[in-house]
Amino acid sequence: MPDLYGAIDLGGTNVRAIVAGLDGKISGDDRRPSRASDGLDATIEALLASLDQACSEAGVEAGGLRGLGVATPGWVDTERGVVPAAPQLIGWRDVPLVEMLQERLGITALLENDANAAALGENAFGAGRGTRHMLYITVSTGVGAGIIADGRLYGGAKGSAGEIGHTIVDPSGPRCGCGNNGCLESLSSGTAIARRAAEAADRGDSAVLAGIREREGRLGARLVADAARQGDAASIAIYEEAGRFLGIALANAVNLLSPEAIILGGGVMQAKDLFLPRAEETMRDLALDEPLKYMRLAEAELGDRAGVMGMIARLGQQAG
Amino acid sequence: MPDLYGAIDLGGTNVRAIVAGLDGKISGDDRRPSRASDGLDATIEALLASLDQACSEAGVEAGGLRGLGVATPGWVDTERGVVPAAPQLIGWRDVPLVEMLQERLGITALLENDANAAALGENAFGAGRGTRHMLYITVSTGVGAGIIADGRLYGGAKGSAGEIGHTIVDPSGPRCGCGNNGCLESLSSGTAIARRAAEAADRGDSAVLAGIREREGRLGARLVADAARQGDAASIAIYEEAGRFLGIALANAVNLLSPEAIILGGGVMQAKDLFLPRAEETMRDLALDEPLKYMRLAEAELGDRAGVMGMIARLGQQAG
Repeated sequence: MPDLYGAIDLGGTNVRAIVAGLDGKISGDDRRPSRASDGLDATIEALLASLDQACSEAGVEAGGLRGLGVATPGWVDTERGVVPAAPQLIGWRDVPLVEMLQERLGITALLENDANAAALGENAFGAGRGTRHMLYITVSTGVGAGIIADGRLYGGAKGSAGEIGHTIVDPSGPRCGCGNNGCLESLSSGTAIARRAAEAADRGDSAVLAGIREREGRLGARLVADAARQGDAASIAIYEEAGRFLGIALANAVNLLSPEAIILGGGVMQAKDLFLPRAEETMRDLALDEPLKYMRLAEAELGDRAGVMGMIARLGQQAG
Repeated sequence: MPDLYGAIDLGGTNVRAIVAGLDGKISGDDRRPSRASDGLDATIEALLASLDQACSEAGVEAGGLRGLGVATPGWVDTERGVVPAAPQLIGWRDVPLVEMLQERLGITALLENDANAAALGENAFGAGRGTRHMLYITVSTGVGAGIIADGRLYGGAKGSAGEIGHTIVDPSGPRCGCGNNGCLESLSSGTAIARRAAEAADRGDSAVLAGIREREGRLGARLVADAARQGDAASIAIYEEAGRFLGIALANAVNLLSPEAIILGGGVMQAKDLFLPRAEETMRDLALDEPLKYMRLAEAELGDRAGVMGMIARLGQQAG
């Protein structure tokens, strides 16, 4: 049996655990609710139960794994292995997760931010295979990025690099959750799409959107996508606008970083037909010829396995 | 005598050559006109004459140098050692500079873009000493950057990373030389300041600026700075506006890259009293707390020696 490693991707909704070799071959895989709203202890138990299940599928004890990598949302202190806080994880505050897991399981563990983990995963096993300089961007409730420079994760001063969602692409744009105006996240995230749809319904610009809100009691990005695909002009325009601003951010990233690939993932990509053509057209229009020549734009391939696969890649870098 | 290396910084106006050890100690230094308007041959002769002079000051033959590093403006093909073209160097087109110099002098040579060279210089010997992740930004006729990631120059796919001047900070901004609207360069460069001053004079917003243009026959950024320091409200507002947009670009760089330091250089920094406070205030207002906490903003220390000192650092990385 080859050396086996554990990887966990902990989110606000689900936790996923796999057991795999450094070649990425998965021999155990579990996914279950992370019980984030029940607080820290419940979430730790869910995480451990998920790992146990993946281990028993793989026929190993957790204590027999060669290492464990955990991806969590929000800021992560990778050096100390601490999760300072994350809006998705209720009641978490300076949690020494690495130490807790090492004590509990008797194996070495390491921690990474989830967007960074997904970037590593796509770079090692997904759409970014073979690139040394790569950007992974997740367009979801928020917008985040992981940067691969010279084949390794680039974390900046303390691992907090990659906040492309809070780069400003239009200073006269709408207010963002961070307090600024015109951040990419305030223009192209799922939240931004839902907000613009609510505004359109309020203004009376779209009877279709008003009807959906009436019927469903809410207006999420997915419902707006349904309306757009049924020909609602306001919904189509909202996705096009989100695509245009994403395109500006992509062009800025191309000009500043000249990556070999930009990989796009995240839940909003399920509506890629509605915004990706506009995003790519805008990017190609605005980016400089030279860095554009050496760059490809691609969709993420690993879906919700990107995070765990990235932690396997990270453990491989550590081992190798 | 310690091992001596040569470094040359070739610009559209001047060429500078030094002879130095890898510790940065300079034993020969020459600066003269690069004769860029006289074409390729004249510029190569100026470059070689400058190196010869630096060598004779140091008491060595050029052929006795352990290596030679050359910084040139514009795109540079560092792998092949070729200068594809540069607006500042008249008549240059796919010039195999490294090969030419190696044949002529019998020593190994390497090539780097001048903004990247300056970034390396400030990182090794200047205001960025001791940082692993650093951004050097030059605000001059144009705006460019060099990125240091994990202690090494980050060039991206083919060495063309760092074009922060062509990241868009205001999509409704003025037309840039690259064809886009609202690039940083179109808002905060010396050229942008001069253009806005000419517009203010045309509109009759500033009798002072109109008078200067009448008297001097032109309106450069330096003359606008003089007017601002004498209290001309329009000139003060132009520099403040340039500072604000630079601040947005700085915040975007902080959020995306989380560098330990951003070092500002370039000719426009001579008017730093007029725009830097506004730039820093805007950056601190817009950047996220976490990456901001680990970042310092500093002025370049090496002035016009940054490029040659960077090539010495580059030769040191190659040797070491």
